[in-house]
Amino acid sequence: MATEKLFNHAVIIGVGLIGSSLARAMREHGLAAKIGGYDLSPEALARAQEIGVIDRAAENFPAAIAKADLIVVATPLGAVSRVFEEIQTHAPPGAIIIDVGSAKGSVVEAAANSRKDIYVVPCHPVAGTEQSGPDAGFAALFHDRWCILTPLDRQDTEYQAAVEKVSALWRGAGCHVEMMDATHHDLALAVTSHLPHLIAFTLVGAADDLETVSEAEIIKYSAGGFRDFTRIAASDPVMWRDVFLNNKDAVLEVLGRFTEELSLLQRAIRWSDGEALEKIFARGSSIRRAIVDAGQETDAPNFGRDKPH
Amino acid sequence: MATEKLFNHAVIIGVGLIGSSLARAMREHGLAAKIGGYDLSPEALARAQEIGVIDRAAENFPAAIAKADLIVVATPLGAVSRVFEEIQTHAPPGAIIIDVGSAKGSVVEAAANSRKDIYVVPCHPVAGTEQSGPDAGFAALFHDRWCILTPLDRQDTEYQAAVEKVSALWRGAGCHVEMMDATHHDLALAVTSHLPHLIAFTLVGAADDLETVSEAEIIKYSAGGFRDFTRIAASDPVMWRDVFLNNKDAVLEVLGRFTEELSLLQRAIRWSDGEALEKIFARGSSIRRAIVDAGQETDAPNFGRDKPH
Repeated sequence: MATEKLFNHAVIIGVGLIGSSLARAMREHGLAAKIGGYDLSPEALARAQEIGVIDRAAENFPAAIAKADLIVVATPLGAVSRVFEEIQTHAPPGAIIIDVGSAKGSVVEAAANSRKDIYVVPCHPVAGTEQSGPDAGFAALFHDRWCILTPLDRQDTEYQAAVEKVSALWRGAGCHVEMMDATHHDLALAVTSHLPHLIAFTLVGAADDLETVSEAEIIKYSAGGFRDFTRIAASDPVMWRDVFLNNKDAVLEVLGRFTEELSLLQRAIRWSDGEALEKIFARGSSIRRAIVDAGQETDAPNFGRDKPH
Repeated sequence: MATEKLFNHAVIIGVGLIGSSLARAMREHGLAAKIGGYDLSPEALARAQEIGVIDRAAENFPAAIAKADLIVVATPLGAVSRVFEEIQTHAPPGAIIIDVGSAKGSVVEAAANSRKDIYVVPCHPVAGTEQSGPDAGFAALFHDRWCILTPLDRQDTEYQAAVEKVSALWRGAGCHVEMMDATHHDLALAVTSHLPHLIAFTLVGAADDLETVSEAEIIKYSAGGFRDFTRIAASDPVMWRDVFLNNKDAVLEVLGRFTEELSLLQRAIRWSDGEALEKIFARGSSIRRAIVDAGQETDAPNFGRDKPH
């Protein structure tokens, strides 16, 4: 007799990096008895089935979720409210719905009026790579990463039980789970994720536009620091477009703080204020040390990426 | 009978990350018969001798270079002109002098009036890690990296021969060698190295200053992108202070380009211009691909830093 799983029939809507990684993690850790999938891209969907990420590819959305007790919405943020509308119509009673979007205010809003017999628990696993698509996923992606849940304002015990079950799912996949209100999430992640991406995209864009320094030179001398920024600047453009469109206020706020700090440094350079520069620069190593100690980063020099010779 | 080495007696002034890496590379590739060292920090100097990076620690600067045919100035940029003055007084005739500074205009200027019987060849090996000190060095640091030479305006054949010998040294250490004028070097490196560091220092500083998001949260959710920036922001503050003080004009120029691009993106976010965002974001992956193809970066997701589980 098979062990009872946390979920009986999970369905992944959007079999990209995060969706396919969660499917793999669910399989590896025995968190779902059956895993179905659906994707607007027939190629991605077929590929996910071919490599065994999902057991079965559905032909259409209603068929995909007809028997699901867990629906994972792993699309770009811009598609979430549309997908929620379909779920509202077609999800079976009792279904738990999670998303994995990097901004949560807009998701909470889109889910606010959902049916009372289905349970939407907005989630954000703070994990990823710069790659995309079903082949890019891997089960260990969530290991030791944090997953933030921003539950809806519902007091019914069924909903509370659903939140518990979703927490167990993420813990089963290797995450630490944290609860937070969506507004605070969106501000915290604007700092630790959205602004860094914006800055990286900006730096790569600015370098691309120079007439005085060639692309060949930028490539050759990128080991001076530039290459670090290209990793996150290589992330999926559509996903990131939607993050910024869905977390405008918080991003603009932290961008304001960044610009203030940049002006200070610009001024210190212009006036050759070495003392000010050194003082600001000295702050970097302590926060890195703390991130390494917290298990969120490797302590190998250069991220350990230099090949051994 | 021992094979003839490129240099008979090399001396490393400043046994930190770069100086000690070059000493190790010279030893590993048999580029110098004897390697001496000197450092203003007695602890660093003793440590370099203890771990075998240098054969002999000198008691003072004149003694260190008295018999040298290669003097490697691997101090922070701010000390270079002072060290050059001492070299001017104490270097034996025929000595070749190189530095490894990240800005070259100020070095070329400081060396412009050097004695005609010594040969200063300004160098910049575009390689490094975020770590510092004699223990942080390793011989393979220069492997497949580019070293830029910005020779002085000297036409004598002795000087040309010295430039050739220095090129051979860097090639022996694993570098590709490129010649460039100092002004262009300083602009190119402002783009690929100095601005990225400035931006990373700024982002880390701005995050440190927030009252609304705690340091604990920044650490936990740093895998969203922030942690990438902390690597270069953990670099030696004194070295980087000196880079900015010695490459002010080029840094302010490329910073102006960066700020323009950032304003564009800020505006696109404010006005929800998804099309503009997506277009800018799409440029990141092609430049990263080119950097990986050029052997300057790993193609493993997340720099390959995720531990296997």
